[in-house]
Amino acid sequence: MPTPAVDADEIGATLSRLRETAPLVQCLTNIVAAQWSANVLLAAGASPAMVDNPHEAGEFAAVVGAVLVNTGTPYDDTVTAMEKAAASAAASETPWVLDPVAAGGLGWRTEVAQRLLETHRPTILRGNASEVLALSGGAGGKGVDATQSPAEAAPVAADLARRLGIVVAVSGEVDHLTDGTRLVRVANGHPWLTKVTGVGCALGAVMAACAAVADDALVGAATATALVTVAADAAAQRSRGVGSFAVDLLDEIHLATADSVAEGVRLS
Amino acid sequence: MPTPAVDADEIGATLSRLRETAPLVQCLTNIVAAQWSANVLLAAGASPAMVDNPHEAGEFAAVVGAVLVNTGTPYDDTVTAMEKAAASAAASETPWVLDPVAAGGLGWRTEVAQRLLETHRPTILRGNASEVLALSGGAGGKGVDATQSPAEAAPVAADLARRLGIVVAVSGEVDHLTDGTRLVRVANGHPWLTKVTGVGCALGAVMAACAAVADDALVGAATATALVTVAADAAAQRSRGVGSFAVDLLDEIHLATADSVAEGVRLS
Amino acid sequence: MPTPAVDADEIGATLSRLRETAPLVQCLTNIVAAQWSANVLLAAGASPAMVDNPHEAGEFAAVVGAVLVNTGTPYDDTVTAMEKAAASAAASETPWVLDPVAAGGLGWRTEVAQRLLETHRPTILRGNASEVLALSGGAGGKGVDATQSPAEAAPVAADLARRLGIVVAVSGEVDHLTDGTRLVRVANGHPWLTKVTGVGCALGAVMAACAAVADDALVGAATATALVTVAADAAAQRSRGVGSFAVDLLDEIHLATADSVAEGVRLS
Repeated sequence: MPTPAVDADEIGATLSRLRETAPLVQCLTNIVAAQWSANVLLAAGASPAMVDNPHEAGEFAAVVGAVLVNTGTPYDDTVTAMEKAAASAAASETPWVLDPVAAGGLGWRTEVAQRLLETHRPTILRGNASEVLALSGGAGGKGVDATQSPAEAAPVAADLARRLGIVVAVSGEVDHLTDGTRLVRVANGHPWLTKVTGVGCALGAVMAACAAVADDALVGAATATALVTVAADAAAQRSRGVGSFAVDLLDEIHLATADSVAEGVRLS
Repeated sequence: MPTPAVDADEIGATLSRLRETAPLVQCLTNIVAAQWSANVLLAAGASPAMVDNPHEAGEFAAVVGAVLVNTGTPYDDTVTAMEKAAASAAASETPWVLDPVAAGGLGWRTEVAQRLLETHRPTILRGNASEVLALSGGAGGKGVDATQSPAEAAPVAADLARRLGIVVAVSGEVDHLTDGTRLVRVANGHPWLTKVTGVGCALGAVMAACAAVADDALVGAATATALVTVAADAAAQRSRGVGSFAVDLLDEIHLATADSVAEGVRLS
Repeated sequence: MPTPAVDADEIGATLSRLRETAPLVQCLTNIVAAQWSANVLLAAGASPAMVDNPHEAGEFAAVVGAVLVNTGTPYDDTVTAMEKAAASAAASETPWVLDPVAAGGLGWRTEVAQRLLETHRPTILRGNASEVLALSGGAGGKGVDATQSPAEAAPVAADLARRLGIVVAVSGEVDHLTDGTRLVRVANGHPWLTKVTGVGCALGAVMAACAAVADDALVGAATATALVTVAADAAAQRSRGVGSFAVDLLDEIHLATADSVAEGVRLS
């Protein structure tokens, strides 16, 4: 068995750096996940700021530690802000994450996400297999009708990552993260993660926080994934149902240490 | 004592069908209740999608299992989306629920809700007594100054239901649901339900989910009401205050079974 | 040691009046804190209504118990609504609270907040030291680069309060509240309050609720601060991490009594 492309010690070290520096993360996200994402960022050790209007989004993206752009509930006004934030992040070399929620399933936002992806090239593209395939275009994707497991989407994700010079993180039962050359898989987590709204959205936000402190964006993406899914393993053992699971998940993200995450993460 | 118009077995069977099919429910709802409604839908077994922009709302309403339109925090942009979604749902025979939050109390949204109601005729209109009375117009309502108990609003609700060919669900201490011919009352619940924001909004969302799987919309409305209020009975026994009550309510909705709801519901 | 400008009995009496009258509080707030603020208001005993569109915000502000204007996620549409609500509140003598989130840090919202402050003079301005200093203009503030502890901002806050005839509440480890003549300090709370998003926003909402029932706005601001921070002291003793802390905080706000808050508050 080959050594994973990212090792547990790098993940622990990145989490330590996150806690030490508390990077400011600008979130342009959806009305469903905004509060939850902010609370997950705070529990993780970052400092969230939801600045998603066209007057301020661009100027702010130039000075923050990282930016998250999430297309969960886009409106004309906030899409304008997303475009300004992404352009400004790219121009000022602020790491930024694109989470193209429901790309492939809905027309307008797919165009928005495709344009953001191709024009401003995020540091990390995070989505489920369908979303990544829908945006892979010339890189070989077949849209949302294509198979939807991260493992099967991984080759397309790698092509896309290579073509654009980005990291692509495909979330699912086993998360597959690639920069086009290296592939790292994270096999933690619990089915209830899909029964709490906005967990994927919050994961994207934590990836932005980790990208702010990691030299290697693949390590950043892996650290965020490890933190959230190792915490989910612990939370699932305490919870009665999905309501208490969400509360326990926040507690476990807060209580997680570099050591506990490095020990708990299942990499390959 | 007459037999209730909907029986507990039908409610149990509808809940089972909801869990088996996990219908996709498009929500156009307010910024306060969006996350909570999505989490309640997930706990109930449905699949929420908050698509509330004018570019996508209409196309999406034609392909989902059901649509919720809630006027809690309307804006010009989202009201346009609501009109497109309601028109598309009506045209494509997608079941849809109208929750006219604060109708009667505020001018603009009352006009919006009245227009949606009369033009596109929802499958289910869900509100408190004041809201239903405010929208009943020629059906005999006296506006928000009228008496506000569901029992006293029930005759007006029945007139409105008959005139428009819809189900009207009047929420309150004892919920009164009618299709204009039949009346079913659900007497579960707890006062703390009014101390958690968005419980009524989430109930409307669950009604949409149940309408997606029930042939009889009155059974759908009763199933949603039974699920949420029977869960509230159980949650109230575990909780210290309204914070833990909301968490326990999600757990209990998640853990509820067709049998537990059919046994716990108090119908008349 | 001088007697505090507000005493614990006045705080207990104001909380009792809040519970008896359940004032209607109109909130124009941000997408992150909307649900949380509504739940905190309900737990505190008030009745929240999030009416933040330009069509209704002005008419509503004339008839509610109090208004909160919070600039956390401003958009053109909601800023128009904020201006109408503030103007209407001022004209109709409805108490209103301005919470200028991130004023000083971002250009557009700073102008918005400054204009609202100077033109419509809120009953209470609530912010952290940076925000208050940024808006103090001619009163001596040096912007966000100035020192950021409430104690050091207190003289500037007093100048501002005197010039505009308002109460200024500076939140922080020890909250400093002043009407320009009197100063009251509240020394309760816990570091985890800064690890739950929207606690400050919710505190502003509770200040609006208390201003609706207190003849003396300084007593209102102190009551809100005491309620939330004494509840935090109790919540911190029960919680494992920031997730359960937020749930326990809601429970403790709900369970707090006039006596428990008057006994627990540390005034100077």
